[in-house]
Amino acid sequence: MTEQRAGLAEAVARTRAETMGLVSTLEPDDMVVQTAPYTSPPKWHAGHVSWVFEMVIRKADASYSPTPMAGSPYLNSYYLGAGSPHPKGERGAVSRPTAAELLEYHGEVTRRLGPILREARAGGEAGRLLEMAMHHECQHQELMVYDLQHMLASRYEPPSRAAPPEPSPRARPRSVRVRGGRATVGHGGGGYAYDIEMPAHEVLLADYEIDVFPVTCGQYAEFVGDGGYTDYRHWLSDGWDAVREGRWEAPMYWERDGSSWAVHDMAGRRPIVDDEPVRCVSYYEADAYCRWAGRRLPTEFEWEAAARGGGGGRPAAFPWGDGPPDASRANLLESRLWAPARVGSYPGGASACGCEQMIGDVWEWTSSEFAPYPGFESGFDEYNDKWFGGQKVLRGGSSATPAASIRATYRNFFRPHERWMFAGFRCAR
Amino acid sequence: MTEQRAGLAEAVARTRAETMGLVSTLEPDDMVVQTAPYTSPPKWHAGHVSWVFEMVIRKADASYSPTPMAGSPYLNSYYLGAGSPHPKGERGAVSRPTAAELLEYHGEVTRRLGPILREARAGGEAGRLLEMAMHHECQHQELMVYDLQHMLASRYEPPSRAAPPEPSPRARPRSVRVRGGRATVGHGGGGYAYDIEMPAHEVLLADYEIDVFPVTCGQYAEFVGDGGYTDYRHWLSDGWDAVREGRWEAPMYWERDGSSWAVHDMAGRRPIVDDEPVRCVSYYEADAYCRWAGRRLPTEFEWEAAARGGGGGRPAAFPWGDGPPDASRANLLESRLWAPARVGSYPGGASACGCEQMIGDVWEWTSSEFAPYPGFESGFDEYNDKWFGGQKVLRGGSSATPAASIRATYRNFFRPHERWMFAGFRCAR
Amino acid sequence: MTEQRAGLAEAVARTRAETMGLVSTLEPDDMVVQTAPYTSPPKWHAGHVSWVFEMVIRKADASYSPTPMAGSPYLNSYYLGAGSPHPKGERGAVSRPTAAELLEYHGEVTRRLGPILREARAGGEAGRLLEMAMHHECQHQELMVYDLQHMLASRYEPPSRAAPPEPSPRARPRSVRVRGGRATVGHGGGGYAYDIEMPAHEVLLADYEIDVFPVTCGQYAEFVGDGGYTDYRHWLSDGWDAVREGRWEAPMYWERDGSSWAVHDMAGRRPIVDDEPVRCVSYYEADAYCRWAGRRLPTEFEWEAAARGGGGGRPAAFPWGDGPPDASRANLLESRLWAPARVGSYPGGASACGCEQMIGDVWEWTSSEFAPYPGFESGFDEYNDKWFGGQKVLRGGSSATPAASIRATYRNFFRPHERWMFAGFRCAR
Amino acid sequence: MTEQRAGLAEAVARTRAETMGLVSTLEPDDMVVQTAPYTSPPKWHAGHVSWVFEMVIRKADASYSPTPMAGSPYLNSYYLGAGSPHPKGERGAVSRPTAAELLEYHGEVTRRLGPILREARAGGEAGRLLEMAMHHECQHQELMVYDLQHMLASRYEPPSRAAPPEPSPRARPRSVRVRGGRATVGHGGGGYAYDIEMPAHEVLLADYEIDVFPVTCGQYAEFVGDGGYTDYRHWLSDGWDAVREGRWEAPMYWERDGSSWAVHDMAGRRPIVDDEPVRCVSYYEADAYCRWAGRRLPTEFEWEAAARGGGGGRPAAFPWGDGPPDASRANLLESRLWAPARVGSYPGGASACGCEQMIGDVWEWTSSEFAPYPGFESGFDEYNDKWFGGQKVLRGGSSATPAASIRATYRNFFRPHERWMFAGFRCAR
Repeated sequence: MTEQRAGLAEAVARTRAETMGLVSTLEPDDMVVQTAPYTSPPKWHAGHVSWVFEMVIRKADASYSPTPMAGSPYLNSYYLGAGSPHPKGERGAVSRPTAAELLEYHGEVTRRLGPILREARAGGEAGRLLEMAMHHECQHQELMVYDLQHMLASRYEPPSRAAPPEPSPRARPRSVRVRGGRATVGHGGGGYAYDIEMPAHEVLLADYEIDVFPVTCGQYAEFVGDGGYTDYRHWLSDGWDAVREGRWEAPMYWERDGSSWAVHDMAGRRPIVDDEPVRCVSYYEADAYCRWAGRRLPTEFEWEAAARGGGGGRPAAFPWGDGPPDASRANLLESRLWAPARVGSYPGGASACGCEQMIGDVWEWTSSEFAPYPGFESGFDEYNDKWFGGQKVLRGGSSATPAASIRATYRNFFRPHERWMFAGFRCAR
Repeated sequence: MTEQRAGLAEAVARTRAETMGLVSTLEPDDMVVQTAPYTSPPKWHAGHVSWVFEMVIRKADASYSPTPMAGSPYLNSYYLGAGSPHPKGERGAVSRPTAAELLEYHGEVTRRLGPILREARAGGEAGRLLEMAMHHECQHQELMVYDLQHMLASRYEPPSRAAPPEPSPRARPRSVRVRGGRATVGHGGGGYAYDIEMPAHEVLLADYEIDVFPVTCGQYAEFVGDGGYTDYRHWLSDGWDAVREGRWEAPMYWERDGSSWAVHDMAGRRPIVDDEPVRCVSYYEADAYCRWAGRRLPTEFEWEAAARGGGGGRPAAFPWGDGPPDASRANLLESRLWAPARVGSYPGGASACGCEQMIGDVWEWTSSEFAPYPGFESGFDEYNDKWFGGQKVLRGGSSATPAASIRATYRNFFRPHERWMFAGFRCAR
Repeated sequence: MTEQRAGLAEAVARTRAETMGLVSTLEPDDMVVQTAPYTSPPKWHAGHVSWVFEMVIRKADASYSPTPMAGSPYLNSYYLGAGSPHPKGERGAVSRPTAAELLEYHGEVTRRLGPILREARAGGEAGRLLEMAMHHECQHQELMVYDLQHMLASRYEPPSRAAPPEPSPRARPRSVRVRGGRATVGHGGGGYAYDIEMPAHEVLLADYEIDVFPVTCGQYAEFVGDGGYTDYRHWLSDGWDAVREGRWEAPMYWERDGSSWAVHDMAGRRPIVDDEPVRCVSYYEADAYCRWAGRRLPTEFEWEAAARGGGGGRPAAFPWGDGPPDASRANLLESRLWAPARVGSYPGGASACGCEQMIGDVWEWTSSEFAPYPGFESGFDEYNDKWFGGQKVLRGGSSATPAASIRATYRNFFRPHERWMFAGFRCAR
Repeated sequence: MTEQRAGLAEAVARTRAETMGLVSTLEPDDMVVQTAPYTSPPKWHAGHVSWVFEMVIRKADASYSPTPMAGSPYLNSYYLGAGSPHPKGERGAVSRPTAAELLEYHGEVTRRLGPILREARAGGEAGRLLEMAMHHECQHQELMVYDLQHMLASRYEPPSRAAPPEPSPRARPRSVRVRGGRATVGHGGGGYAYDIEMPAHEVLLADYEIDVFPVTCGQYAEFVGDGGYTDYRHWLSDGWDAVREGRWEAPMYWERDGSSWAVHDMAGRRPIVDDEPVRCVSYYEADAYCRWAGRRLPTEFEWEAAARGGGGGRPAAFPWGDGPPDASRANLLESRLWAPARVGSYPGGASACGCEQMIGDVWEWTSSEFAPYPGFESGFDEYNDKWFGGQKVLRGGSSATPAASIRATYRNFFRPHERWMFAGFRCAR
């Protein structure tokens, strides 16, 4: 159920090092500030992931002697069981502990993890919790990338950068038809998964069509150009309120460039690329685009069935089978592209029904509310289970998702108005 | 598909008269005020339902010559297609048009409806729209009851009042088991239904248990007494925020009465009645109770299958079959009880699997998000379709629901924090 | 110090009747609504002034047996000593007590006042308090006029209406020079005055110029036309914030009329009248106009010295001497004009130094903060004394001020951003 | 009118060095954060004071070639004439320019000032503006001390620290009587002064009593212990609102210590010292204390007359005469005490009428609104003149005020609810 002991130790070490790598090029000031209530300072991310490691160690080992940081309300995100957390929106008002102290703390926890990981029995409770804490750190790496884009955009100097693959010549927007019927969804064993991906269970699907690619910037720009943001008829009522209150005119980070649009992100300030998946759109925008286009968003189960092979046999862990992601199949954090790749760049990652780029590039909004699966059992208090309701499920991962922490059953969730994440969508009918 | 012409005319006339009956005992001041942003003045309800009638007439008959009120932004609730509505939270700041003018307007529209209803072809577009406007008026009668309870509670003098039926002696909280499998849900024809109840379609259910009765005040008081409102562990994160911001300590309208609780509603200020269904609780409270009790809320489809007979054969319109509700089967508006009846009061209304009081008494929260059924087609712009998402489905109707406008496929929806409606719940497992 | 016993009884009776007259033409709905947080429903004014009468009776006579309304938190404006007042901004959400009940209450208190007034010793404590309560009712008559203008404007049907006097032909904007030195200000005896007008004391004034007339709509329209509301340089920082937050483009109730301006008030919707004093401007607007015009507002003592005759001799109660106002000297509530009169309409009301229309028409903003005079002693707890600071003094009275309750020492006060009152200003240098 | 050229250059150099000294012991994180909307990050202060120097240089010398920082909206506090300033409450959300860059900028401006100061004609416009910019930097040094106390309190490591003088044995609270009459107030020449201190003019004062010392912690603790913060009768209405909204129970930085009080400031966390002047109280608290004690606050002119010698002869620059402050006369920033000294510590600083510690230790609230003196002429746009009204004048300086920038005519001003400044008060009658 869990990785072998040695494998876990190695994976944790890699994850810890990756976090340090992401902040290695920052100025001291960058470590400290919070540029919006929904972002966090990099030093906070570094401290918090270590704090969670200590929290799970203490759950697993009553004799563990915690560091002084273990009691910090500042590093507590929202665990009421661990005391009264510092308010999320005020993480940028904290100068002490300093970034230097928190980086030191990150190192200290890494050192302490060494012997603990060596002793953790594979499949035991300690191993399960430590593995969870590692995946938790992966989640925060991704959030840190979002936050650094918000703070620095093209001023962020990535630790390294790769060239995107050349898209396949046959890539142009099209749909495939998927047969309905009973489909098994959810994680059924093999590799790590969160409690919310379980238990595997059957759902009944009608026949449906789904797009081969996520919606691109070029497609989305047509919607914008057609007055998409000024006509209430495309929008849910809550979405229309969000448009007006936020004065939205286009996806986040898009900027007018004469009569055209530019985007300003870690890849620079540049004209939008027509066949790059659109990202940093809210659920409301995804939904409005679909209504304008005469389409709809897929449910999370339609998405999953299209990704994992649908009705027959044991569904696979990934669109391409059970093998782990690599740079030829998916644009994930380790690919170091720092932006989505153009559609058609990963023919090797196609699913059985022919959908491409389902993993990596952009998280894909689905129409499903984040809710427990039938028979859900909480694996960790307050981690996922107190967030059910009021959020929408996203599937697939983004160019900021660590490869070690993604699979086709992964359920991400955000509020429908949020859009600083690397979220896009794919249409269904 | 629609009622016969004469039937419709009669139903409309009855509905129009009922609205007038509900306000017949009010003081002039009561007609005008708005006691919370989520309520509306009675004069507004009276005007708005007539305004909607005019709106649908104009859609059906281009030659109709509207009254001057037809252009009123004040009477427009939220139809952006009909201009810019007056802000909902400021309906109590409007002195003109006066209550007298709006009651006169209600009468004028009733008079104008006479010939129009006579000419409307059964099954035609005009008939369909007029029927919708009638059901819309039924909805506002119910809202008006909520609003009058908020404004006046026991100072509201009902136009008439009936005694509640004596509960059956065998009534005590218990569960029944329902077999899962494929079940048909949604409205499949026969009688009126809103667009959001269609199309009928199949869903896959696992086996489940469901309570015979809604949760009672006595049961809920145990939760309250056990510190239910002071322990975050029972609550969703958003729910816990609502508890603290709203300083909730018990259901709305409950008041401390020494060491016990009283409730103040249209039936008076009185100690809570142990075997009366609890009401005026939010989704968050229903959900927290369930978690405390080791239960969960049913999905809307579990609820519907338990109400309509489940897997086999054509599902019925009501728990007791296809016959319309009457006072021996359900506590609805026409029963004139003005409060829920004690559990066990309607053995004649039981469903095939043995659930009682599924229709009437209290709307029942389900865990399902309000979302379109597969293949949904909008029947009227901005009426239901712009509200998908962010709300939860409630089923069954309350003691303020008009009998003419309820059925087991009816999907009501409210935000999870709202609780001035007559909403309760029933547990599942 | 106080009027003779019979005179007081008569004055109270007149005041009570005037309040009833002002609401005599209203619709029932008008009595109930509150159209802004800073206004109050007419029924509230009627009830509150009676509640204050009962409060002062109880202070003066411990044996008085109060009505049930005397304990109403709703009718308590802000007297913490009398319990916990109903929130001011929610007076429009109250349907009970009804308008009918509050008018009945007003009548009941009037009846009860009869014997009490007959017994009150002239100059005694009871007489002093009753007289205060009468002047308090006068203040609320004026507030009621502001509130009715806000609610109804030209839809208000006044109980009677008079034609304005013809302005004198010599009237055109000009200034007079006033010699400085020691001046006696404040109320020194003779007739009623509030505690805040006392004690009379000396101040030192430099020489100054002051305008003969209040600033007119024509003058103010030049400021507006010259971009006055779009150039921050004319404004105090707080004022500029108010302009942008309130989206102010002109005085309250001014409406664009093509390239010109109209005003909508109780006198109808009509083009602004060039030589009518401008009103419904905030302190910030008055101050900005002055800066634009190279002028400044007078201090309250400069205003008072210009009005009462300045340095020599005993200062008079009014600009024209000690005689009471009448319709040939001042446009006050009893004149029934319902709007300011054109400048030059009251040559008979001129002060010794030549200033006209200092009493009536519009309250005049001064640059003085509302603060106690040296040696101030509170005459009534929480009535005036808890409002010192953060407000500016206005002098002179408006067309809605009852003649019985104005004099040249009267100090009105409002927050600098408020502008629904009938406030204008006069320039100094 | 201005200091000699060499003197100015030296004073500017000293001031620039002092700013660098104050931040010399900070961690990098401390430079960046903003702990409340009314504070600013230290790096911002360092940058802003340099930005203002560049702004005045550009006003004085059209040929000056500004640095790139000169156009920074972030460094613009509120000068609309210099573009659109970055919002004050969001200064802590800015990582670039970095602290390192802003310290470099501070150095660069200091270097550029060298030749400019050498060339500035004494008494010329450039000299006047540069001197103003130097005093502006002094003001920000003081604000920086407030902000560092808010951020770090006893964790701030001062660049150096001195021991407080021993108080004189005759020091116990008492009042002196001051004769009224005509008094000259305001700056009449000799040394630097801001525009708002001018012109000197006469005012008329009644006789009054004034305390020899500011109110002490011991005296204030009696007010607190007597229920001062729970009885509305001591408070202005706006003050009472502030108490409840801010949940005030004592001065800022006071903390309950069993049945007693401690204070947490740069001098450590320590029991309150009975004969230390109380500080970090709002105007409302000062006013409420006075009402409780049967006293009142002095006007700013009563304060000034008591400080400068009152009616006869040319009023002095300081209570002790025209000589500059030194450590034997006043506790100012250069004394390095970082807290007020006990009353009686500076007998050498007494005024002619016997008042002590009028300069230094704590700013003293007066009852006077911040308003222009008669004949005021603005010396610099938007610097002081757009803040008239809505604020109260404080006199005297605090332990964080630079000695180079204080005198008895100095008028400081803050909103009546603000209390993070080192503000106390002295009673009058």
